[in-house]
Amino acid sequence: MTFFLQWDIIILVKNIPPPIAALASAFSKLPGVGGKSALRYAYSVVDMSRADAQSFAAAVKAVKDEVILCKTCGNLTDRDLCAICVSRDKSLICVVAYPRDLLAIEKAGYRGVYHVLHGTLSPMDGRGPNEIRVKELLSRMSGVSEVIMATNPDVEGEATAMYIARLLQPMGVKVSRIAQGISMGSDIEYADEVTLTRALEARIEIN
Amino acid sequence: MTFFLQWDIIILVKNIPPPIAALASAFSKLPGVGGKSALRYAYSVVDMSRADAQSFAAAVKAVKDEVILCKTCGNLTDRDLCAICVSRDKSLICVVAYPRDLLAIEKAGYRGVYHVLHGTLSPMDGRGPNEIRVKELLSRMSGVSEVIMATNPDVEGEATAMYIARLLQPMGVKVSRIAQGISMGSDIEYADEVTLTRALEARIEIN
Repeated sequence: MTFFLQWDIIILVKNIPPPIAALASAFSKLPGVGGKSALRYAYSVVDMSRADAQSFAAAVKAVKDEVILCKTCGNLTDRDLCAICVSRDKSLICVVAYPRDLLAIEKAGYRGVYHVLHGTLSPMDGRGPNEIRVKELLSRMSGVSEVIMATNPDVEGEATAMYIARLLQPMGVKVSRIAQGISMGSDIEYADEVTLTRALEARIEIN
Repeated sequence: MTFFLQWDIIILVKNIPPPIAALASAFSKLPGVGGKSALRYAYSVVDMSRADAQSFAAAVKAVKDEVILCKTCGNLTDRDLCAICVSRDKSLICVVAYPRDLLAIEKAGYRGVYHVLHGTLSPMDGRGPNEIRVKELLSRMSGVSEVIMATNPDVEGEATAMYIARLLQPMGVKVSRIAQGISMGSDIEYADEVTLTRALEARIEIN
């Protein structure tokens, strides 16, 4: 059995029952969960009712067994087409890197459909256009009036947005990019230079 | 299926595949895990390899199936007696409320055995001496020279320590309480009055 816990936890492993250590090791693979939290979660499972623990275990398994990618947009779903693809205006497509980004845009009240790339272009990591769902996007362009690029405002996200825009524009599709500027509720005093430069360039007249 | 997520997540549930929502709901029952983290963990399970997800699910189940209480001390174990009970000096017993407290004391380099009460006295919540493992402690006293009470320095922990001390002292057992005072690395300026009062009372002469 392999353990992926922090050192101060590892030295204690001999006094932690192996099933708890194994579960803590599994928890520590979740994003942002360190050794201490992983151990805390594992102990809390011991305190759960048997029914809760069993439905927890079943839920972990079900996610891998039942969740697939939507045939059209690549969003996560448990059917052929996701709930968004079957019900929305298909002339407006918002392109995101990951399903979690889709949830964020969804909260902002967007009501078109999506295309999930499942990654961004990253020559350094060997991710070219064939490693992300670019081909699938190009094949969806009939009847589309606008594609909104909503990849992250970082080097990879920008490169991916530019790359896809250059492919779509010759097809007569309008391509836009979500605005970059200062965040609502933030302090201009602490905003970084690049963000402020973009915010100034993209200024909007007040009427 | 019931969901225990925060409101901003619930309104999105229709666009989250049910298996992911169910798993997020299970994660949100872990201590300190809110709706957002629960959803993030659930999405990360989708990205796990099938083998990792399966061993995760198996680990959750195994903890409930295999972890039991040590017959002697009440620590969590997967055998009759825990690893600490089979290997340590049994004349010194440290009494803690929960298995997690045991881990903390263990890190501090303690080398005696333990007794885990699995709770503290709390008349308000209907927890009397029969609801925690007091009887089991009393039955372990032959050959014991000292019992260290390491319950939390709060109302319930203090009451539990005093109650058990009053039971053990007539049996000729020395009972001690872990010291209370200012924490290492803390600021006296910000220490609370009760802590400072105890720290002054328990002052130690410098030789």
